Amino acid sequence: MQGQSDNNSLRRQQQRRILADAFLKMLPADAVIFREEELVPYECDGLSAYRQVPLIVLLPYDTGQVQAILRYCHTNKIPVVARGAGTGLSGGALPHEDGVLLSLARLNKILEVDQSNMRARVQPGVRNMAISDAARSQGLYYAPDPSSQIACSIGGNVAENAGGVHCLKYGLTVNNLLEVTLITIEGERITLGGGGLDSPGLDLLALMTGSEGMLGVVVEVLVKLLPIPTKAQVILATFDEVEAAGNAVAAIIANGIIPAGLELMDNLSLRAAEAFIHAGYPVEAAAILLCELDGSEEEVAVSVKFVCSILKQSGASEVRISKDDTERQRFWAGRKAAFPAVGRISPDYYCMDGTIPRKQLAMVLKKIAEMSQRYDLRCANVFHAGDGNLHPLILYDANIPGELEKAEKFGGEILELCVAVGGTITGEHGVGLEKINQMCAQFPDAELEIFHAVKAAFDPHNLLNPGKAIPTLSRCAEFGAMHVHAGQLRFPELERF
Amino acid sequence: MQGQSDNNSLRRQQQRRILADAFLKMLPADAVIFREEELVPYECDGLSAYRQVPLIVLLPYDTGQVQAILRYCHTNKIPVVARGAGTGLSGGALPHEDGVLLSLARLNKILEVDQSNMRARVQPGVRNMAISDAARSQGLYYAPDPSSQIACSIGGNVAENAGGVHCLKYGLTVNNLLEVTLITIEGERITLGGGGLDSPGLDLLALMTGSEGMLGVVVEVLVKLLPIPTKAQVILATFDEVEAAGNAVAAIIANGIIPAGLELMDNLSLRAAEAFIHAGYPVEAAAILLCELDGSEEEVAVSVKFVCSILKQSGASEVRISKDDTERQRFWAGRKAAFPAVGRISPDYYCMDGTIPRKQLAMVLKKIAEMSQRYDLRCANVFHAGDGNLHPLILYDANIPGELEKAEKFGGEILELCVAVGGTITGEHGVGLEKINQMCAQFPDAELEIFHAVKAAFDPHNLLNPGKAIPTLSRCAEFGAMHVHAGQLRFPELERF
Repeated sequence: MQGQSDNNSLRRQQQRRILADAFLKMLPADAVIFREEELVPYECDGLSAYRQVPLIVLLPYDTGQVQAILRYCHTNKIPVVARGAGTGLSGGALPHEDGVLLSLARLNKILEVDQSNMRARVQPGVRNMAISDAARSQGLYYAPDPSSQIACSIGGNVAENAGGVHCLKYGLTVNNLLEVTLITIEGERITLGGGGLDSPGLDLLALMTGSEGMLGVVVEVLVKLLPIPTKAQVILATFDEVEAAGNAVAAIIANGIIPAGLELMDNLSLRAAEAFIHAGYPVEAAAILLCELDGSEEEVAVSVKFVCSILKQSGASEVRISKDDTERQRFWAGRKAAFPAVGRISPDYYCMDGTIPRKQLAMVLKKIAEMSQRYDLRCANVFHAGDGNLHPLILYDANIPGELEKAEKFGGEILELCVAVGGTITGEHGVGLEKINQMCAQFPDAELEIFHAVKAAFDPHNLLNPGKAIPTLSRCAEFGAMHVHAGQLRFPELERF
Repeated sequence: MQGQSDNNSLRRQQQRRILADAFLKMLPADAVIFREEELVPYECDGLSAYRQVPLIVLLPYDTGQVQAILRYCHTNKIPVVARGAGTGLSGGALPHEDGVLLSLARLNKILEVDQSNMRARVQPGVRNMAISDAARSQGLYYAPDPSSQIACSIGGNVAENAGGVHCLKYGLTVNNLLEVTLITIEGERITLGGGGLDSPGLDLLALMTGSEGMLGVVVEVLVKLLPIPTKAQVILATFDEVEAAGNAVAAIIANGIIPAGLELMDNLSLRAAEAFIHAGYPVEAAAILLCELDGSEEEVAVSVKFVCSILKQSGASEVRISKDDTERQRFWAGRKAAFPAVGRISPDYYCMDGTIPRKQLAMVLKKIAEMSQRYDLRCANVFHAGDGNLHPLILYDANIPGELEKAEKFGGEILELCVAVGGTITGEHGVGLEKINQMCAQFPDAELEIFHAVKAAFDPHNLLNPGKAIPTLSRCAEFGAMHVHAGQLRFPELERF
């Protein structure tokens, strides 16, 4: 075994050298990283439980260099993993051990902010927040706002179809794109979409969005911009029962209100956030709802009044309205810092991301509470309630043997429950490597075969981010034997869904 | 030649007989139509300039029968064209001369209206309007409203990604779908989407929407329902110059207002509509804008006031607000009847459907007016101004030799102009057969190759609606020699776009 490991290491060193020589001929020296110690920072993305040093990291300066890299990889059948800012939470940018890690960090120019057509043309390495910063002086902004928006890149947002607290009203990344230019594995430049309402032919722009780097490498993005709302206010509603908060969410939506954001935090998460940020949350509450309304001064006044009355009818024990923008920001600060806040009360946590139909909210929260007891692990619930996107945070201690495995099992059970009630295994974080087994629970073989066929239409040799997002049928067969049947048996009472 | 034609006719008769015998074994007798005189009603859809009698028409009663039909066609390599209500305007449901026309008209059940999750599960043959009718008692409706909504089916809406006057605020069909079940050409049942915010894996639901029957046959659709707005009002604004109306549209959107509908009619079309419907339109106006605002009573009051002030600032000479729902309906009646109204003032008309960036509106209208003079054909402009979706109606007389050809050339030139200014050749009517040549102007070969590869992933033998929507590269080469280069030369001043 030792001899084999040495052989592998030697083989990798040789491969690395060959690649470095080849790429140094087509790229500037500082665009090719191949020394082991310099490769380590790229060994994982935001899902740090999985780590893999790539053969080589490339940091091209322009689209022509991206084309040259992909042509070489295509000719020589070398796997390529594209990476934006590396903030992804599902391991989508985890390097391939025998492949190139292609960072788009240097394609970071905002090419145009077009005020009259309300759009911006940007390179993939531009940070999400930088687009809104650049558009602000013209009264515009880019709506999707993942929690990582200060750091995450628009290219990564396209790859994962990122959402955020405002996606209930303004949509996910896919709803805010007009056009994407990508380089195919053959090195060809292709433009998808095109700025119109509906693009003729097949909707490849939507197909590309959320495809996790498996169809092509994004080198330019045309995004929609929206006028910055004149006014925004947040209502903070306190509930003595989580179920009542869930029902209030349904009541708001059923009354035809689409808030700019509608978030639920349970007691464990709001306590953690309050201790960390001092947002002014009521620490005795079973749950709080944060409901943001935006628009013109008068529209917001009308909607705030209406939503407050719905919240009270739904059993809110207290309703507070942000009195100015400072207070509004403070109400959100607790929510936006909920993940690090939970990090303070537990050595480790495992962030889940599933969706369920809104009406299942109360039932699913009850089942998660039961699982929490059964696994003897705490679980904080923070989520985009308006669109049924759960983010349970499972608290564990990686230093206690077996706790990580227990947390993963707990998480897997939550996702299987999401599927069983008619939801999905990911709301906005993507499948990546983390949820590839759960894809087998989500999709029958026939659907997975179509995924593979479509992937092959773009990338017949499976070189672009191989092993992510779409499980092979044999992987599912293996996983199915272990989990899925058991998973189905776990929720026999839900078979009617 | 006569002998060859007789041979063809004989061969078709034999093929028809073989198919009829085969299908009569798997379907009830009244589901198999093969007598020439009974086939004629299916020879075209809403684009009646193209006609083709199919070999056979099948009218299955359930999904199992659809599967049996497709399995047979797959095994025997027989082309299949699926058809909803046949109201499509681009020839997408034109039969194949050697193929099966598969009507989904009998899959017409509303399977469930789910009030608490605000969704409805329906079969593809259900009429668009019937969904809203069924949901009304629960305070809900289905938002996309193509002009043909009384007749068109939801399956056809999915195939063409249909829009309507309200799609500015509520989106196209693709934005209002949760899940589609389809039968593949191999006869397999596949479910795409799944009710969540974002479906894991590739976004095949969006890919399927608007794919014009080329990837599979839709047998079930889960649509989103929305609460019926408490209040809706329409503003009718009169302009003495078309350009001012165009600029008013941009000003409304730039102020962060998203009207439920925002439509522009020029003098020719509003005069025709007024003469037909007596909607109360100002017949001397160069153009009118119809702007609908919906929401709660108070929200609408606030927004109407705001939009009226924007319209006046933009140069509207008169602004009228619908005083009750009867007047609101009358204002819309003229717009909704604009096409038949134009039909009354001209023996024939050719309806175009292109999109342009909003800021090009005034310039494009000016160029269309110039073309109208050059071709010596009148052109009425009616369109979804808010999203830059033009519907120029070219007036001609098919009985005057050469006029149809001239109208088609005029139309082609309009679409090429749309592409040249950064728009697209179809906003909501689809490509079908009508615009297959313009697809060559819209997309370079590399993009078309990807379309074909994705199509082949679903339908490797090209049996589903062959010859529609995606031109072959050889077709484009041929068309390019005739038109595209000339088309590009036609707008040399636009090359900067």
